[in-house]
Amino acid sequence: MILGIDGYLGWPLALRMASKGYEVIGIDNMATRKSVEEVGSISALPIKSMDERVKIANKEFKGKITFVKGDITDYKLICDTIKEHTPETIVHFAEQRSAPYSMIDVNHATYTMRNNINGTINLIYAIRGADLDTHVVKMGTMGEFGTPKFDIPEAPFVDVEIKGKRDKITTPKWGGSWYHWTKVHDTNNLLFANKLWGITMTDIMQGPVYGTRTSEIKSEDLFTRFDFDAVWGTVVNRYCVEAILGEPLTPYGKGGQIRGFLSLQDSMDALTLLIENKPKTGEYRSVNQFMELLSVNEIAEIVKTEAAKLGIDAKIKNVENPRVEEEQHHYNPERTVLPSLGFKLKVQMKDAIGEIIKDLLPNKNRLENYKDVLLPKTRWR
Amino acid sequence: MILGIDGYLGWPLALRMASKGYEVIGIDNMATRKSVEEVGSISALPIKSMDERVKIANKEFKGKITFVKGDITDYKLICDTIKEHTPETIVHFAEQRSAPYSMIDVNHATYTMRNNINGTINLIYAIRGADLDTHVVKMGTMGEFGTPKFDIPEAPFVDVEIKGKRDKITTPKWGGSWYHWTKVHDTNNLLFANKLWGITMTDIMQGPVYGTRTSEIKSEDLFTRFDFDAVWGTVVNRYCVEAILGEPLTPYGKGGQIRGFLSLQDSMDALTLLIENKPKTGEYRSVNQFMELLSVNEIAEIVKTEAAKLGIDAKIKNVENPRVEEEQHHYNPERTVLPSLGFKLKVQMKDAIGEIIKDLLPNKNRLENYKDVLLPKTRWR
Repeated sequence: MILGIDGYLGWPLALRMASKGYEVIGIDNMATRKSVEEVGSISALPIKSMDERVKIANKEFKGKITFVKGDITDYKLICDTIKEHTPETIVHFAEQRSAPYSMIDVNHATYTMRNNINGTINLIYAIRGADLDTHVVKMGTMGEFGTPKFDIPEAPFVDVEIKGKRDKITTPKWGGSWYHWTKVHDTNNLLFANKLWGITMTDIMQGPVYGTRTSEIKSEDLFTRFDFDAVWGTVVNRYCVEAILGEPLTPYGKGGQIRGFLSLQDSMDALTLLIENKPKTGEYRSVNQFMELLSVNEIAEIVKTEAAKLGIDAKIKNVENPRVEEEQHHYNPERTVLPSLGFKLKVQMKDAIGEIIKDLLPNKNRLENYKDVLLPKTRWR
Repeated sequence: MILGIDGYLGWPLALRMASKGYEVIGIDNMATRKSVEEVGSISALPIKSMDERVKIANKEFKGKITFVKGDITDYKLICDTIKEHTPETIVHFAEQRSAPYSMIDVNHATYTMRNNINGTINLIYAIRGADLDTHVVKMGTMGEFGTPKFDIPEAPFVDVEIKGKRDKITTPKWGGSWYHWTKVHDTNNLLFANKLWGITMTDIMQGPVYGTRTSEIKSEDLFTRFDFDAVWGTVVNRYCVEAILGEPLTPYGKGGQIRGFLSLQDSMDALTLLIENKPKTGEYRSVNQFMELLSVNEIAEIVKTEAAKLGIDAKIKNVENPRVEEEQHHYNPERTVLPSLGFKLKVQMKDAIGEIIKDLLPNKNRLENYKDVLLPKTRWR
């Protein structure tokens, strides 16, 4: 079961799982489509309606995908759907996933809190009422950790020394937006539920994902959405659209912000491994899911270089940072769970950018009208 | 301005501030009255309607109290009220404050999350839009810390060593119920808002409060509510009602759970000091507000002894613990802020129990019908 099947990751995961012969039940309230429209933007790659693309996918993958339109903040809906389909695994992507969107104003802040926190609480109560053996794979974010001076553990708890005494505490977090804080609050709530009821969890702290293709997305009919605006686009994808539109690539601030990135293809491989290698019943597994550590300046250089190979002369122009974040910092997160499950990196960023730009180029004319959504309008302060 | 003026602490604080000559604006949505009724209980001390008791108080305190019926999850209401009255200080008690209530079922869990988190976010946005110099005094709980092996700091951040590296992190927390977790989430959200916007904060980590009287509550007309049932009553007050009803005093589990307690009178003194000694503009001050460290078994012994002096022979009967908590643990929270402001303890628990029991005794017949709400019905697991 995939909560948030209409999303950037949800749709490719549905295709991946269906192609491997699993039954896939997807729920979505179509919030991302509406919210992207709300900020005056669109998906850079045209995507079909859910009904249409499920039909196309089911032709290729033998009717394995079932779509349920609905909202997981509706407790009855999530309970009924779980009862009807008794999923082995529930992958939870159904959260508002934009930091800038959560920072627009008080209504976007409270919506993000309510939606993300209560959807997740509904899910764990629904499982508690059904089957605690169901494996919940929850999408968190590396952004829950902030950029601490210690090496970020890959574990829900960590040993510390505080004023001469030792204890085990929840791994320290510091969110950079209301969105990030909802993910921190989720993690705390899920750890509590796990302690009370023994829910079986994989909590994925994922870095920003980039790319247009997976092994299953061969035709444009099966494209997943691709956001590029300042609210919904993440850094790599945004730079690629800036490049094809002849706009400068725009790292925020000094650009020394380091994050852990991975391609859409690698994200799907990692998710598949985690789904197929379930933790022990009642275990809470935390995974740091990223492959390459790069600064946002370094990424701009990569995109510039790869764009040049396709005859595009991209400039780089650092712009005022709308966020409140360190622009030069230590960053060394642990990463052992995925390698221990046999994960092998397929895509390095420098090898993927050309493909992204090629997929975007046919949409250039359509995107010319959306240049005004490239630069941030919401400042954190 | 007091958010939650109808509550156990809100009402006595309104009287205290009015008696000192401050203008008091109180907001309340009357949720506690409704929620106590929902679980089949009542206030052990009869309380007047808000309109009636404001009228009585205003006779004594020269019309200093203004009551606004409303809900702070309504952003417009909180903004309009702040704009109209431009408070120097906003004391925020307006949260669902019962751990057992939050654990009843999924709807009570999500209600508690939504209500507490979004009310607080509305408040900080309202201040951001009005005056960042406004001092927010927010009621948290010592329960945010759980019962760690280290000495609980009295500070929002603490220096730690993690795997050989040092950093400053948010003081570690572990909530014991959804309610407690909302307070942890609030603290994280408020620290973030403070970093972004410099909101001036006093975050009070208060221990359980007991008692019926303050310097201002001399007549029964001005009583504050007094909850005793398993959902809304806290341990000391609940034991006192058990004693007058001839029911055993019921510590949960082994009864070695240690908490930091203070009397209603001392809570008002502490709040007054914190309100009148505002932190620097933009400062985030954390206060551990409690006076006596006692185990729930020790409290039962105190109540038994004091009841005996009034001719009541109370038995003690440890009952199954509905909660998931340590029943034997280290507990040593720092407490320096209030003493540094000149706080002097007025009431020790052993000296206050007799007065509580005397105030309760005239209500004995009325409370006979409520014996069935004394024992917990919701088990955390």
